[in-house]
Amino acid sequence: MLDELTNLTMDLIRIPSTQYNPDALSTCADYIGQYLDRIDAAWLRLNHNGVPSILVMPRTGKVPVLLMSHFDVVDAPDPLFEPRIEDNKLFGRGSIDDKYAVALSLILVKKHLHQLRQNGRDQSDLPFGILMTGDEETGGTNGAQMALQQVKADFCIALDGGGLDKIVIREKGIFRLKLIARGKSSHGARPWLGENAIEKLMRDYFIIKGFFFDTDSNHWQRTLTISIVHAGKSQNQVPDYAEAVLDIRYTEQDDMMELIGQMRSVIQGEIEILSTAPVFSSLPSPFLDHLLSLSPKTVTGSEHGASDARHLMDHNIPGIVWGADGGMSQHSMNEHINLNSFETLYQILDQFLFRLRT
Amino acid sequence: MLDELTNLTMDLIRIPSTQYNPDALSTCADYIGQYLDRIDAAWLRLNHNGVPSILVMPRTGKVPVLLMSHFDVVDAPDPLFEPRIEDNKLFGRGSIDDKYAVALSLILVKKHLHQLRQNGRDQSDLPFGILMTGDEETGGTNGAQMALQQVKADFCIALDGGGLDKIVIREKGIFRLKLIARGKSSHGARPWLGENAIEKLMRDYFIIKGFFFDTDSNHWQRTLTISIVHAGKSQNQVPDYAEAVLDIRYTEQDDMMELIGQMRSVIQGEIEILSTAPVFSSLPSPFLDHLLSLSPKTVTGSEHGASDARHLMDHNIPGIVWGADGGMSQHSMNEHINLNSFETLYQILDQFLFRLRT
Repeated sequence: MLDELTNLTMDLIRIPSTQYNPDALSTCADYIGQYLDRIDAAWLRLNHNGVPSILVMPRTGKVPVLLMSHFDVVDAPDPLFEPRIEDNKLFGRGSIDDKYAVALSLILVKKHLHQLRQNGRDQSDLPFGILMTGDEETGGTNGAQMALQQVKADFCIALDGGGLDKIVIREKGIFRLKLIARGKSSHGARPWLGENAIEKLMRDYFIIKGFFFDTDSNHWQRTLTISIVHAGKSQNQVPDYAEAVLDIRYTEQDDMMELIGQMRSVIQGEIEILSTAPVFSSLPSPFLDHLLSLSPKTVTGSEHGASDARHLMDHNIPGIVWGADGGMSQHSMNEHINLNSFETLYQILDQFLFRLRT
Repeated sequence: MLDELTNLTMDLIRIPSTQYNPDALSTCADYIGQYLDRIDAAWLRLNHNGVPSILVMPRTGKVPVLLMSHFDVVDAPDPLFEPRIEDNKLFGRGSIDDKYAVALSLILVKKHLHQLRQNGRDQSDLPFGILMTGDEETGGTNGAQMALQQVKADFCIALDGGGLDKIVIREKGIFRLKLIARGKSSHGARPWLGENAIEKLMRDYFIIKGFFFDTDSNHWQRTLTISIVHAGKSQNQVPDYAEAVLDIRYTEQDDMMELIGQMRSVIQGEIEILSTAPVFSSLPSPFLDHLLSLSPKTVTGSEHGASDARHLMDHNIPGIVWGADGGMSQHSMNEHINLNSFETLYQILDQFLFRLRT
């Protein structure tokens, strides 16, 4: 079984389906569609603003459990699109984020469909659906956000985070801010006649940084990253404008609008809100208890990054984020999946879904 | 006489001879050449790396006094290339920096040549030469630096700074530095796993700023301007690289290499030297005393900006920087020359040069 999981994941890794390569994204969706055709499954290809997603459901609209994954990946140098196995790990872009989960979902559909048909039943008796989207890495607004409108599910497992030892039941939200400083330009030889916007930006940044504390060893608190700065045009001029992008991750403890109001009241410059994403917080569900009973070493916990699980909130679907182990190597040059965890996860989910049948 | 000075300056202002418009630079040199042809003066057009300069000398190689000016200007919106007169001021790009000085030089040549010829003498009896260059605003390496190799002068007046009340005998030098900070990249949701290069850059900048003090009311001390910052590629990533341009102006009091060594020893990042210009400091000359005796309200002083006068040092030519009054409007939207000062300057220089004849 591990070979089948691994081979399918490797095929998917070879397709460089990044946001910068729409053709490859489409090719990846084609590949998935052809796989589903081969196992004679009915499926739906969605398309929003050029982003393809694929949905497999027992019947339209209603399902006990939905498995969600994504086949878009973040950009990488070419060698990362050639998968390799070493030390019982599969390396390559998308190995843990998130093509293994696409392969896992497809093979679960294949197996359960086969078993159902052996018993004279068909796809309409499938106790789960799978959704594979093409834009998780860029926010999921054309993938999960749109596709979930077509799905009624009692429970969703976003196979895109956590690990065998941890089911993620909450993820931080995001506030992306633009910090703007305005000064007064002057010749670089006479700085006392100007006001340097870069210096003002730096001072404002350190004031804003005062709103963030790294006191929790689990880091379950708001964090601040200054990710981009652009300022100044001419080497011999005091610049009158500077701007920076701030990436804030926050928890259910934070009232972000109040916090931004406080920041605005103490800095000299301006704050613009570029984009936001809500905190994901799992709604209670008997399916989660069921899953934990099948995997006694697994506990629930939190994750810092955001995922498409955020869109479950909008659609009132109880859900969790879970997955195989990759040593937190997502997005890195060293991205990999631990193959033992891949197989174990498959077995647990297989069992979990099997018990939903009857 | 003022009309002639003003009209010629206005003609020159209408030619947008910026570094970004080599055709206009060439047209401006053509215009000057045609003027010199009309007054039947011998002249030389130099060209280095596409930068034109024009030199008028009594005879090759040797002259008591050289008047130096430049016809390149800094960039400006179109309306600034249409000169206008208001409140006895002439407005427009280049009015004070430095096309009035080109016009002044040309008209002085015209007048003295005419007087000499009336007395049966010719250009070889001219007691001064004029040099008009095309790249002062970008450092003068292809203009003044090259042309001065062809000139032996006892004294040079760089008509490009100061004012009727102040002859500039020293100008600050320049060190342009690149400040580089290196960190460790991580996902923006997990900043504790990375080292933010932008923050490091900011901390290094404030450390470097500690080497600068604004204690002298004349500002005759080194100054620091952070003029450009570029850092970060992705909104959700802790950046591993950040860089800034620092524009340092220094005086004869500063040992810049020692200072940079000290900076390097206390910052975390790196300093690269992008470019330098020496301090200009006038060598003693009886010509300066002569000039001061003709203009009793004028004192000697310093200026913060650098000019082509820096190149006099390399060629061992004693010299000063002097000029008409423009209310420090060089490079601004409001650039202008005070027309009374223009006429007065002309009269003083005319008298000064007249006394050199005999």
